[in-house]
Amino acid sequence: MSEIQQVKPSLHTVLTPQVLDLYEIKNSIVVIIDVFRATSTMATALFNGAKKIIPVDSPEVCMEMGKQTGGVTAGERDGKIIPGLSYGNSPSEYPRSFIENKTLVITTTNGTKLLHMALRQGAKEVITGSFPNLTKVVEYLKTQNAPVILGCSGWKNKFNIEDTLFAGAVIEQIKDHFTIHCDSSYMAQQLYLQNKDRLPEYIKTLTHWHRLAAFGLEEDMLYCISQDTAPSLPIFKDGALVNGA
Amino acid sequence: MSEIQQVKPSLHTVLTPQVLDLYEIKNSIVVIIDVFRATSTMATALFNGAKKIIPVDSPEVCMEMGKQTGGVTAGERDGKIIPGLSYGNSPSEYPRSFIENKTLVITTTNGTKLLHMALRQGAKEVITGSFPNLTKVVEYLKTQNAPVILGCSGWKNKFNIEDTLFAGAVIEQIKDHFTIHCDSSYMAQQLYLQNKDRLPEYIKTLTHWHRLAAFGLEEDMLYCISQDTAPSLPIFKDGALVNGA
Repeated sequence: MSEIQQVKPSLHTVLTPQVLDLYEIKNSIVVIIDVFRATSTMATALFNGAKKIIPVDSPEVCMEMGKQTGGVTAGERDGKIIPGLSYGNSPSEYPRSFIENKTLVITTTNGTKLLHMALRQGAKEVITGSFPNLTKVVEYLKTQNAPVILGCSGWKNKFNIEDTLFAGAVIEQIKDHFTIHCDSSYMAQQLYLQNKDRLPEYIKTLTHWHRLAAFGLEEDMLYCISQDTAPSLPIFKDGALVNGA
Repeated sequence: MSEIQQVKPSLHTVLTPQVLDLYEIKNSIVVIIDVFRATSTMATALFNGAKKIIPVDSPEVCMEMGKQTGGVTAGERDGKIIPGLSYGNSPSEYPRSFIENKTLVITTTNGTKLLHMALRQGAKEVITGSFPNLTKVVEYLKTQNAPVILGCSGWKNKFNIEDTLFAGAVIEQIKDHFTIHCDSSYMAQQLYLQNKDRLPEYIKTLTHWHRLAAFGLEEDMLYCISQDTAPSLPIFKDGALVNGA
C-alpha cells in the first residue's frame, strides 16, 4: 500500500474585507470579487483589449495616476461620475472601440480596497472574478495547485449576496480539486445551487439591486451576472491588472 | 387619506463578532446566538431553574466570580473542563436536580465575547437564543417594537452556519413585524428554509460538527438544534442572565 496521497490545497471564502485578517493570505491566490460592478467591469475592459487596469483607492490618486500614465480615469459615487474623473464604473462604457490598448485607472468603493488589503497581507497572486469571466477564473484556479481565498468585497465591509453567489459558482466547479473545511464556502455553494437557475429574478431581491436600480443601473446588473460574456483573466502584476488569459 | 403608517423597526443579522461595529447597536435588542453550545446551555440551565448565569471572558475571572458568588463554575477548552473549574459547557450537565436555584458562572469562547461587545456598544437589551428557546425569543422580539440585531457568535470571529441557521429561524417567524434591508438576513432566512426539514442530517456537514464530534459531543449538538426543549428567555440584567420568561 505505497500509494501516494496527493494533498489538495485549501479553499476558503472570505465573506467581507473586515474578516480577511482571520485567514492565511500568504502564499494564497486571492480572487477579488465585486460583482456589482468593479470586477465585472474589469473583466470586460481587459477582454475588450485594455492594455492594463490600475485600481486605486481614491479619486485623488486616480487623477494623479491618470496624468502619469495618460490613462482613462474612472470612478463613481452614488451612480454619478466623480468630478475630475472622465468615466464611470459601468461595463457598458468600455467597448473594444473605446478601450482597446488604453490604460484604465479606476477607483471603486469596495473591490479596490480588498485588492490592496490582499496584497499587503502577502497574497501570492491576486486575480479578479465575476460572472462575465467565471470560466476563466475556474480554469486558472484548477491548474495552480495553490491555496485559494475567494474574497468577497461586500458593501462597506458588510456581507452581500451577489459576491457570495459568485464564490459559490466557483466552488461548485472546483470543489473536487480542493480541501474545503469552511462554513462560508459551504454556505456560498448552497446559496448558488439554490438560485443559479433564476439569477435574474433572484438578484432583484438583494439590497444592492435596490441601491443601484435607483440610479437606473438595472441593465448593468443583469450584465454582471451573465456568464462568460467577457472571458478574460485579470491578474495583478507590477501594480496593474493585465489580461492573463 | 390620513392613514397612519406604522414604521416597523429594523432587523439586521451580524454574521460574526468581527463585523458587529458596522451596525447600529445602540437602542437595539441584541440576540446573542451560540448554538453549539453556549446559548443552548444557558437556555437549558435557566429553564431548569438556575437563579442566574454570569457569563465571563476567562477561566481566571470564572474562578474569581465563582468564589465571590458561591456559584457553580463552568468552562471547556477542546472538549475538556478547564483546570480549576468544576463543570463543562454541555447542556446535559444542568438538569433541574442539579442547577435549580444555583448561580452558574460560565466562560465560553465565542458567545460570551459577543455579549460583552454588545453591552459595550450600548445595546438597549441583550438576550440569548438558540433552538431550545426559539419560540420564547420570537415571542419576545415581536412585542418589543425595537430594532433587533441577531448576533451570531461564529467560531473565532469566523462565520459559522449553525448560528446563521438560528438567525434564519427567527427571521422566518418575525419578518412581518420588521423592516429588513439586510443581505445577511435574507441569506440566513433562505439557508434556514432550505434546511429546516433536515437539520439533524444537515448539521453533520458543518465544520463545527466535526470539531465537536471528535470529542464525542454528537448528542449535545442534536439537542442544541431541538426546538423549544428549554423554553426560557435569558435576559441580561445587572451583570447576569436571568430567566425573563
